[in-house]
Amino acid sequence: MDCLFCKIINGDIPSYKIYEDDYTIAFLDINPDSDGHTLIIPKKHFKDLDDIDIDTLNYINLSSKKVKKILEDKLKCDGITLLQNNGSIQEVKHYHLHLKPFYNDRKSLEIVKHQKYINNPSDIYKKIKDN
Amino acid sequence: MDCLFCKIINGDIPSYKIYEDDYTIAFLDINPDSDGHTLIIPKKHFKDLDDIDIDTLNYINLSSKKVKKILEDKLKCDGITLLQNNGSIQEVKHYHLHLKPFYNDRKSLEIVKHQKYINNPSDIYKKIKDN
Repeated sequence: MDCLFCKIINGDIPSYKIYEDDYTIAFLDINPDSDGHTLIIPKKHFKDLDDIDIDTLNYINLSSKKVKKILEDKLKCDGITLLQNNGSIQEVKHYHLHLKPFYNDRKSLEIVKHQKYINNPSDIYKKIKDN
Repeated sequence: MDCLFCKIINGDIPSYKIYEDDYTIAFLDINPDSDGHTLIIPKKHFKDLDDIDIDTLNYINLSSKKVKKILEDKLKCDGITLLQNNGSIQEVKHYHLHLKPFYNDRKSLEIVKHQKYINNPSDIYKKIKDN
């Protein structure tokens, strides 16, 4: 399969690997949003949250707890965001969980709305409940 | 405990609840980043990713798969981001997983770097491996 992340797992493409176990690997994003921006991926190819099975998701969870500690310990970050994209905003179609360290003294204007216009939650609630 | 989300679980504070099972509830964020912005929380109080046990995290996973389908089905979004904050960037100190729907036709300038300056991943890799 012509999957970038499968190639990283197989060693066909080099990576800055910082953690590995039987089911997952974690490596630094080469286009980071912050220092230590890491991706955790399953070794078996799954496309996204719908596709990945619950056991593998559990292994991802276990890895995320460990990798979070590595990043905190080594990089002395003040916070970490876990993030996983699906659908039109997912770039590489191999399930991947981002860990983005945050440093208080480098705070940027990173808090932006996800969309151009937003409706009142009460209207959205009706839409979800009434359809 | 004086926890906003525990009060929502107990029904002391109203919420736009869109999903519930024995271990988790999901409700709309009242200050949404996009239409259908939802929070999934465990009914038992856990602070963050370090604090939450692996079984409960598994229940959160199961809920996230279901809530993702509800949002896609009812709101016809094109993508969904899952996001969970820890440390200095976590606001309410009760573990919560954000689900943020994305709509292609409302695309905004939402892609920003998480921090003001970013080092080369190769330098960060050394820092993680050499310390």
